[in-house]
Amino acid sequence: MRFFFLDEELEHQTGPWVPPRDLQAHLKALRLEADERFLLLGPSGRAVLARPQGRGAFELEGASERPRQTLFPVRLATAWPKGKRAEDLVLRACEAGVAEIQPVLCSRSVAGRESLSNHQQGRFQRIAREACQQLLRPELPQIHPEPVSLESLFPVDRGELPVILKPGARPLAQILVDEQPSQVLLFVGPEGGWSPEEEEQLLTLGCQAAGLVPTVLRIEAAGPLAAALCQHQAMVGKLN
Amino acid sequence: MRFFFLDEELEHQTGPWVPPRDLQAHLKALRLEADERFLLLGPSGRAVLARPQGRGAFELEGASERPRQTLFPVRLATAWPKGKRAEDLVLRACEAGVAEIQPVLCSRSVAGRESLSNHQQGRFQRIAREACQQLLRPELPQIHPEPVSLESLFPVDRGELPVILKPGARPLAQILVDEQPSQVLLFVGPEGGWSPEEEEQLLTLGCQAAGLVPTVLRIEAAGPLAAALCQHQAMVGKLN
Repeated sequence: MRFFFLDEELEHQTGPWVPPRDLQAHLKALRLEADERFLLLGPSGRAVLARPQGRGAFELEGASERPRQTLFPVRLATAWPKGKRAEDLVLRACEAGVAEIQPVLCSRSVAGRESLSNHQQGRFQRIAREACQQLLRPELPQIHPEPVSLESLFPVDRGELPVILKPGARPLAQILVDEQPSQVLLFVGPEGGWSPEEEEQLLTLGCQAAGLVPTVLRIEAAGPLAAALCQHQAMVGKLN
Repeated sequence: MRFFFLDEELEHQTGPWVPPRDLQAHLKALRLEADERFLLLGPSGRAVLARPQGRGAFELEGASERPRQTLFPVRLATAWPKGKRAEDLVLRACEAGVAEIQPVLCSRSVAGRESLSNHQQGRFQRIAREACQQLLRPELPQIHPEPVSLESLFPVDRGELPVILKPGARPLAQILVDEQPSQVLLFVGPEGGWSPEEEEQLLTLGCQAAGLVPTVLRIEAAGPLAAALCQHQAMVGKLN
């Protein structure tokens, strides 16, 4: 069933309902059938069933179970791409089931040295919300606004495997098969690559270096592809 | 080494060189160092070494070996996304090492029923070229302008595995390990999914149904992710 995220909790769980303005436009564009029920997901995790009644009117039909989608837990600690490409990073990270997006400071970073502005945060939240509605992904990713140093993310949780992406390194899927982590923390460097010091530091802190594909990917492509490989490998693992 | 694609063959392989207008702007924006040599790749496959001399002047230094990037051969037979999303499909297909992009006609397709216009073809070529330069991918993908029926792509070549993407099906990586194909033909359906008839037809024609990740991906995300998984699996295979 389709669902839509709400910024604020509903006041009632039954009876007539007027959608917030942005959702109103979206629901209109979707041209839902009169009996095509959907769920409203409040910020606290509650789900309420809604039914279109035609002519832009809606009826709430009471509390419902929140939908689930089982994702492998991936944190993406990433250098930040410039301008519009950051929006693409957020979209792709949603697709790839990334649970947390954490901007990191790298010595060769050209963007993302400042905290995300309120405007950027709002924009990224909107992109994530619309993407997750499309992806039938009921849990939004957490987007941390403040860039942090690489070492501040250590030590990692038990069972979490820290991985740095590095062109030409051992394929990520192979590493996942060997290490069988229960979570992954992915480090994605800036366009100019990791400095030798950063790479050594991350390896010393326990990271494995992983390669993805023969093409040289940009920031917004690399991290999400690695996360998608983790999701895929988790599906394969279940079959073994 | 960086390289740039040319529309036309060079008249000389040595001596002063004036870049074509669009490349001129691009080279200027890159601010190459005076000794930062690069390659020019002509349409016939020839490569010529070039050297920036400062102040927008360039010198050709003769024929050179064409760079290589080993990609696993993937053909992407895909329903076509609407509007700008088709540009995203082309970009992501380049990243994922797709060799051929073939629009296909599906019963639930809402876009891509017509041949690509000259304008669209030009736009997609430009996107592919710029993407491949970034990706250090010296072979451009072939983009077929004419949508074709699903059955017209059969029989497939010997060693080529036809795969249809279907949410919830067996993970693609597992299928690749079992089948060990030397090429893959990926079928990606429209947003509304395959019709039951299409799915049956494709399975009867020898396709395997493959799943990717738990999220429900749009056209421009699904095919490229599947292609990237093929590239990744080919890298893993080499290690076994």
